[in-house]
Amino acid sequence: MTPGIELPPHVAAVNLGLSAFADALREQGAAVVEVDWSPPAGGDAEAVALLTRLWGRHGDRIAAANRDAVERIEGANPRALTVAPAGDVVEGLTEGTLLHAGPPIEWAQVCDPQRRALVAAALFEGWAPDREHATRLLARGEIALEPGNEHLHVGPMTGVCSPSMPVWVVEEDASGLRAYSTLNEGPGRTLWFGVGDDEAIERLRFIRDDLGPWLARLLDRRGPVDIFGLAAQGLNMGDELHMRSQATGNLLIRDLAPALAATGGEDCARFLAGNHHLFLNLTMAAAKCASLSTDGCAASSVVSLMARNGTTVGIQLAGMPGRWFTAPAAPVEDVLLREGHEPEDAALDIGDSAVIECIGLGGMALAAAPAVAAFFGGDAVSAARRTELMAQICAARSGRFTITSRDYVGTPVGIDARLVVELGITPQITTGVLHARAGTGQIGAGVAHQPLAPFRAALAALAEALEERAAVGAA
Amino acid sequence: MTPGIELPPHVAAVNLGLSAFADALREQGAAVVEVDWSPPAGGDAEAVALLTRLWGRHGDRIAAANRDAVERIEGANPRALTVAPAGDVVEGLTEGTLLHAGPPIEWAQVCDPQRRALVAAALFEGWAPDREHATRLLARGEIALEPGNEHLHVGPMTGVCSPSMPVWVVEEDASGLRAYSTLNEGPGRTLWFGVGDDEAIERLRFIRDDLGPWLARLLDRRGPVDIFGLAAQGLNMGDELHMRSQATGNLLIRDLAPALAATGGEDCARFLAGNHHLFLNLTMAAAKCASLSTDGCAASSVVSLMARNGTTVGIQLAGMPGRWFTAPAAPVEDVLLREGHEPEDAALDIGDSAVIECIGLGGMALAAAPAVAAFFGGDAVSAARRTELMAQICAARSGRFTITSRDYVGTPVGIDARLVVELGITPQITTGVLHARAGTGQIGAGVAHQPLAPFRAALAALAEALEERAAVGAA
Repeated sequence: MTPGIELPPHVAAVNLGLSAFADALREQGAAVVEVDWSPPAGGDAEAVALLTRLWGRHGDRIAAANRDAVERIEGANPRALTVAPAGDVVEGLTEGTLLHAGPPIEWAQVCDPQRRALVAAALFEGWAPDREHATRLLARGEIALEPGNEHLHVGPMTGVCSPSMPVWVVEEDASGLRAYSTLNEGPGRTLWFGVGDDEAIERLRFIRDDLGPWLARLLDRRGPVDIFGLAAQGLNMGDELHMRSQATGNLLIRDLAPALAATGGEDCARFLAGNHHLFLNLTMAAAKCASLSTDGCAASSVVSLMARNGTTVGIQLAGMPGRWFTAPAAPVEDVLLREGHEPEDAALDIGDSAVIECIGLGGMALAAAPAVAAFFGGDAVSAARRTELMAQICAARSGRFTITSRDYVGTPVGIDARLVVELGITPQITTGVLHARAGTGQIGAGVAHQPLAPFRAALAALAEALEERAAVGAA
Repeated sequence: MTPGIELPPHVAAVNLGLSAFADALREQGAAVVEVDWSPPAGGDAEAVALLTRLWGRHGDRIAAANRDAVERIEGANPRALTVAPAGDVVEGLTEGTLLHAGPPIEWAQVCDPQRRALVAAALFEGWAPDREHATRLLARGEIALEPGNEHLHVGPMTGVCSPSMPVWVVEEDASGLRAYSTLNEGPGRTLWFGVGDDEAIERLRFIRDDLGPWLARLLDRRGPVDIFGLAAQGLNMGDELHMRSQATGNLLIRDLAPALAATGGEDCARFLAGNHHLFLNLTMAAAKCASLSTDGCAASSVVSLMARNGTTVGIQLAGMPGRWFTAPAAPVEDVLLREGHEPEDAALDIGDSAVIECIGLGGMALAAAPAVAAFFGGDAVSAARRTELMAQICAARSGRFTITSRDYVGTPVGIDARLVVELGITPQITTGVLHARAGTGQIGAGVAHQPLAPFRAALAALAEALEERAAVGAA
């Protein structure tokens, strides 16, 4: 018998939370109903006090701002207009500047795969004759590092962008807000996977000289591409639009087929058709457009940005655009590694692609993509469960992204940092895994659960900002 | 109290079959467990005797032959080699002959939509100056009618094929068996939908002069297309490959993209990309190849062919290739009609496309395509239920066609006519609905449940054949 709990002969109990109590009752033959409950914010008094302010006296304002933010995300209609050299369209991406994924970072802290990509980009631009020289320029700050997100650019994995790289130019139809993303480099030895060898640079030249101008001609002939329109269809073809967007990529190729026949370019077409991640960067730029549209929802606790650089993760709230809240990057969990690799070979979570989760796709939409769940050893039910888990931390359900195989349920949209902290459930991001040291590129894939600290710090700052604004208003 | 059943005070019952008995028990307050059971073949003594022979003394031979038939279907690897004018490749399709969907039929019995398509085909071939003249030639037998299936051709809906129409040439890789199907004419005013006006004929000219030769050039450049390989992928992108094969069509377009860029032909590319049913005829020709491969499974009760001409439906068994068993064509049920149409406007079930159901796709695979189920007002669960219902009448589960969202369950394959008759469950075919009189084309879609009679007649013939062969063997 467990000491301390003695029971009368006939007892039935309802146990909330810790199951040790239920176990003790069961040992004595009592019937127990267990309720899966834990105290808000794990019972942390400071966090509870913070949440009390945010749900209490600021509750109405935040709720209204969050509704507004979700409406803006849901109402955004980003379209791919053209493809152009990044240096021509991305403001501030001048000679001697490189963009990278994730929050701001010093060269000394940059992780190995991102470092390799940055060095390769410097060589590709002709800023250094060799890797040693390029490394010196980067270390001395003679090549400047800027987070892509601060220049309306988002890049997957290492997320490196240099002025000569072509980017998708995506524009939100009503507001004219623009965002950019590199052309996906495809599988194999490529910068986005942290490979910076000559082969990777050679591919960049093909992308710069052939693929970019060719895609610009295709889009010119076809007209703007409704990115979320295609994504909504692809979501019902087994894509969650982050780890998997093959069906959506095929929809794009179908849309481009007439222009393709008119334009020619067999090599470019072969590259396009052979790249399963063709659509990823389009989804990212479109998601960036949609999340940018939440700027001005001043009291919103909706997460407008999550980005990782393989060293740190940074988030931003719609209510405080431009203000980073960071923590060390998470390891990727539920990971499936290619043969010959060990867990210690895995780099930490990296990439700007988590902007996809901010608008109701990717990890939010796993229910739509059982093949992605299966990749992690899960079945269709577990895929659906992951989506429902995410619904617990989201402000709404998407009206635009619905899952037919789940009877048209909308994907969760609008991550509410208050719910994240209260429930202790952080957004899950379906993502690739890079080699941590060897420069050999992608070695697996998994799910990255983001750390809680930045969400909590962001909430504290939001509460402070709301109270300051109230004080100013009252003065 | 129901007369005739009086109960002791405390009784619990298990009721098999007719629920009237259970109701009577319940009225008296007794606990009843109902088992959903009905007697084999609805209790028909003659059918039960037939089934007893087929499961009993012929059971082992049939089981072995059915295993063989399923293995052949599952092992078939049909590939699209080229596109060529039907008259050049389809044996017996000479000047003055037209092919049609379904079993053999006399002109007087031909339904209105198929009649319109045949008349239009005669005009298209230049065999008659006008529709009246063409109709006379058809009525007098001066234009001969032949079932496509007897010439290795399968066509959807009206299924009309004339010598100048280009067809997909599909070959089973190992055996060299070939089958053919017209190029899908797309939506709108077209022969396959029973529209025979000048616009429909104009489109045929485009298909003959432009699309056909263009596709031949594409395939020549690309090389053979593995049809079932693409279908297996499409099945995990929301297609069941009969009513819906959009995702699979997109996979084909992606595969053809390099050839498309090399070949040019913007108009043809636009037509291809705009036709959601692009892949349907390829699936049909491939399915015909696979089901042809069951020829020689002499004792097999597996259904190798189901085809309808809008007047009659005919089936064939793998054990007796070439021998039709027919019945009046069924009405299409669970039908969704376009606005302005009444049930009496609907033509009867038509088309050779049910060969798709013979190899484990279409109605067998509805679980993979909740959007198709939703079209009929059903949800994902009802889609899965339809597939499980079909599993009851099939000899096996496909190893090649599996459904990720249902945890990789194989689709039912190898319809066993014995199970159809025993359970009174006939194959369901997802299909379009044509106007019965007005020549206005497709007016809706639904599910066609095939009549039971041909399956029963086929079984009787199979039993007879087996016994004759045994007698000959013994003599």
